[in-house]
Order: sequence, then structure tokens, then C-alpha cells
Amino acid sequence: MSKIRVAVVSYGNIGKFSVEAIQAAPDMELAGVVRRAGSTGNNPPELANVKVVSDISDLGKVDVAVLCSPTRSIPQVAKAIMEKGICTVDSFDIHGEEMWKLRSLLDETGKKHNSKAIISAGWDPGSDSVVRTLLLAMAPKGLTYTNFGPGMSMGHSVVAKGKDGVKDALSMTIPTGTGIHRRMVYVELEEGANAEKVAKDIKADSYFCNDETHVIPVPSVDDLKDMGHGVLLEHKGVSGKSQNQLFEFHMRINNPALTSQILISCARAVLKQQPGAYTMPEIAPIDYLYGDKEALLKKLV
Amino acid sequence: MSKIRVAVVSYGNIGKFSVEAIQAAPDMELAGVVRRAGSTGNNPPELANVKVVSDISDLGKVDVAVLCSPTRSIPQVAKAIMEKGICTVDSFDIHGEEMWKLRSLLDETGKKHNSKAIISAGWDPGSDSVVRTLLLAMAPKGLTYTNFGPGMSMGHSVVAKGKDGVKDALSMTIPTGTGIHRRMVYVELEEGANAEKVAKDIKADSYFCNDETHVIPVPSVDDLKDMGHGVLLEHKGVSGKSQNQLFEFHMRINNPALTSQILISCARAVLKQQPGAYTMPEIAPIDYLYGDKEALLKKLV
Repeated sequence: MSKIRVAVVSYGNIGKFSVEAIQAAPDMELAGVVRRAGSTGNNPPELANVKVVSDISDLGKVDVAVLCSPTRSIPQVAKAIMEKGICTVDSFDIHGEEMWKLRSLLDETGKKHNSKAIISAGWDPGSDSVVRTLLLAMAPKGLTYTNFGPGMSMGHSVVAKGKDGVKDALSMTIPTGTGIHRRMVYVELEEGANAEKVAKDIKADSYFCNDETHVIPVPSVDDLKDMGHGVLLEHKGVSGKSQNQLFEFHMRINNPALTSQILISCARAVLKQQPGAYTMPEIAPIDYLYGDKEALLKKLV
Repeated sequence: MSKIRVAVVSYGNIGKFSVEAIQAAPDMELAGVVRRAGSTGNNPPELANVKVVSDISDLGKVDVAVLCSPTRSIPQVAKAIMEKGICTVDSFDIHGEEMWKLRSLLDETGKKHNSKAIISAGWDPGSDSVVRTLLLAMAPKGLTYTNFGPGMSMGHSVVAKGKDGVKDALSMTIPTGTGIHRRMVYVELEEGANAEKVAKDIKADSYFCNDETHVIPVPSVDDLKDMGHGVLLEHKGVSGKSQNQLFEFHMRINNPALTSQILISCARAVLKQQPGAYTMPEIAPIDYLYGDKEALLKKLV
């Protein structure tokens, strides 16, 4: 059986971990990595034996492209690749209306160009979305809380770093239950900066003003960074007419490693779909797995 | 939009809770209940306004039959109903080879008679199977443990009750971690029975001899019975090349209420499939839910 040829588009953190997940998958081979024209001459050592190009068309046959570029660029990048008849998976991470717009755009593109996409395929949105869906099937009435962390929030860290007097910042998301979060913001101050003023500026920002926020000056932010993250997803609800059904899904994980593994499992699943675009709750879970379906089901069911 | 007409076949515990779950589902109506010919004149009060028949053909149009009869009878019952072009869902609870035999039988039946089935649709097998599948998509390498309980084991209770000198018995499954279980067996002894001999007989039985088993005489077993159950599903594994990814799925639930709700969610999903038979990991989770797909996905993804 010939292996699925997978391309990785854009090589940041997620791109790096996606290459690893492809290398670990028995049924896949890395077709190559697509980087911006300026970056292809300047590759890190782990790409020494990998084909690196600036145009995906230079990689020969590609079955699926794993899009590891920033969320905002995904609609344009995905559409262009799907128009070549290549399937895509992405971890587009804006929920609600924006997600649906992307799904509509790529669904139309896929149906026109005979290609397929799985969008928003990470852990949230992504596997958490699947768990939330399953929990509603198990207890349709009730409350669901998604508690994130402890883990670094990229968005909040960037905002804190942007304040006057801040050299570097790390904003940790700390769950305090029922979907409410505390922000622990570690800041490395510039020479002569006023710690009190920095704290006030950060707490007043719209990213922080609605959450309990603590700002803590530290000598080195880099020393505190770790890619661990977590989720506690809670659902308490009603099955039929029976109350107080209690469910929890809990994980403690390396954040980019999990996002990338889910992207790669979706790269396998996307080939089994009809032309169009899908979110993870629309995919039969068995499609994610490598191996003989009968043997898998006998073990898992 | 016309409602999905659902029949409940066999009226024990699961049948009773299935009727409740159908009544709670906004898109379904109860076509009626099918009972053995001898039972239809002797209905409990909650069936007063429900059509009760001994042949499903007497219920008029039926879209899906929810099979609540004992596992051993499922292959024959499901096949007969699918041959009438009616879809079925069941909670057949023998894993592995037997499950696959049922799937093959009903897949063939469905394809021949233009009907569909979802089999082994409870919580284990069932929703736990979906979680196990999803966890493998998230971290393909590693160990998974399914820890059951605390909750009553029907099978073990029946075996304990069958021993000489035992009037009634309740065997509780207690999880002690890594998929290992303790059996706490509460026995109501017959007049003059020897408690030590009863304990020895139970512990020697093949149902108990491989587990840590405690036998405890009590004045009334009935006073101890409760339909609560639980699961802790644990997975520790590798995403890509990153170790120590930790996952837990935990629930504490009313056992027949959850089984029945899942059956009813599957009764909705089965109508959206192609002819044939499926297990839950083969179903797109969004198919279980009632409501507009776009609105659901905007909320859940």
C-alpha cells in the first residue's frame, strides 16, 4: 500500500511538531515543507534531509497539506491549495461565525475542485469540540464548562509584552472552575520601568480587565516558559428524565505536540471524506486511526 | 417537520428509560412499545397512554426500533426488524468477535433491505468506545485503562445469587486503578446458611477467582441497590514524538438512564447513515444531536 504523502505548510512550532508526527505515522511520508521564499535557504538542522520549497507544486504528488500558518492566513492559503485538488487540514482557532465562514468557503472550494478539508482541527477547537458534542448526546440538557490551563496563553502574552516598560511577558491561564480563569502575568521589566504602572496598564487592557489578573515582575521570563497546557471539560446534565449525570474530560499535555498530532490524524481522515469541508464533530472518529478497521473496532468497541 | 417515530422493543429497565428519553426528545414521538404476547395485558401505569403490541407491524409507520431485549436475543430480533425496512439501535454488550459477527450480519441485512443499524450503543461498549478511539487519534502510542465503577455488576450479582444458601446478592465493581477491580459482594443469606461456606463458594467461582473479592452478609440486599455507576478512562501516551500526554475521561451516572439516552441519540443518528450496520466510532458525533447543524457547530466547535 502506498503511503499518504503529506506536506507541511509553514514551519513554526506547529510545523515542527507536525513533521515529527508525520515521521511517527506508519502510513505517511513527508512530501516536504513549504516555507516563505526568504526562509528556504535558512533551514534548521532537523530539516537537513527534508525537501524544503516555497511553492507546494514543487513537491510532486501531495495528498494532504497540513497548514501550520497563522489563523488569519488560513482562508487564503487553504483555498489556494484546495484549488490544486490537494486536501488540507488546519487548526483555525476562531470559534463561531468565523469558523463557519471558513467552512463555507472551503466547502464550496472542495466541491468545485474535488478536494476536501478538515478545519479547526486542534484540541480547542478540535478534540474538545468532539467531546462537547458527545456529552450532549449523552445528556442533552445541562451545563458544560470548558476550563483551560494551567498553560500559557499566546494571545494574552503578546498583549502584555506590548505594554510600555515590558521587555518580555508570559500570561498563564489558570482555571478557577465553572469556565472562569485567572491570569497570572509574569513580566520582565525594562531598565527603570515602573512595576506598578505596568501592572495597572495590563489590568486595564480589554484582554485582562474582565478576569482576575495578577502581574508579577521576574528577572527572566524565558526561564518560566513551558509548552504544557491542560483542559478540564465538565458537563452535568440530564439523560432522558434522569438528573445529575456527571462527566469530566481532563488532560495535561504538551500543547503544540497535541495540536500537531490531531492535525496529522485529521490528515488521514480527510482522505476518507466526500469533497467539501468538515469540522471534527462531523468526522467518524474511526477515520482518524491507522490500521485495519475490523481489528481496530474489535479492540476499541 | 414530521417527528421521528420510534418503537421500544422489550420493556425492562432499559425499555422504561428509553421511553422517557424518547418523550424528552423534541424531534421524536413514541410509536409504541413491543412486548411479549403474554405481557401486553399487564402494563405498568406509565404505559397507560402508550400503544403496546406484541408485533411491531401493528404500530403503523416506525422509523427506528430501539431494542431493549437481552443481548443474546439481539441478532435475531434486529435482523427480523431490519428485514421489514425498519432501522434498529441496540446495546449489544459483548465486545470483540461477537460484536463483529453482529455487525456483519446486520450490515448484510441492511444492505439487502435498505435499512440501517447502530449496534453496541450504550456507554461501554458505546460512548467509551468513542472516547478510546478519539484518545488514540490524540496520542496513538501508549496505555489505556478503563476503570469501571463503583457500580453494580449485573452478571456478577446473578452468579453470587445462584450459590447455595444465598437468597439475594449484589456484586459491586470497585475500581482500584490500571483496569483492576475489586468485587464487593453483599449477600442476604437463607436461614441457617453458613456464611463462611458461601464466601468460599463465591470466591472460587470463575467470575470472581481472579479478582480481589470480599463477601459481606447483610440483612437486606434490596436496601443497598442503586443504579449509579461510573467510569474512569485513562490514557497516557505519545503525540508525535512527545511523551507523557495525560488524558482522563470520568463519569458518575445513572446506568440505565445513560444507556437509554445514548440509544435514543443513536436512533436519531442511524437515520442519517447509508444502509448497513455501524458501531459508534463509525458515526460522526454531530449526527447524534437534535437541531440545526450550523447553529450546533457554531456553539460546539
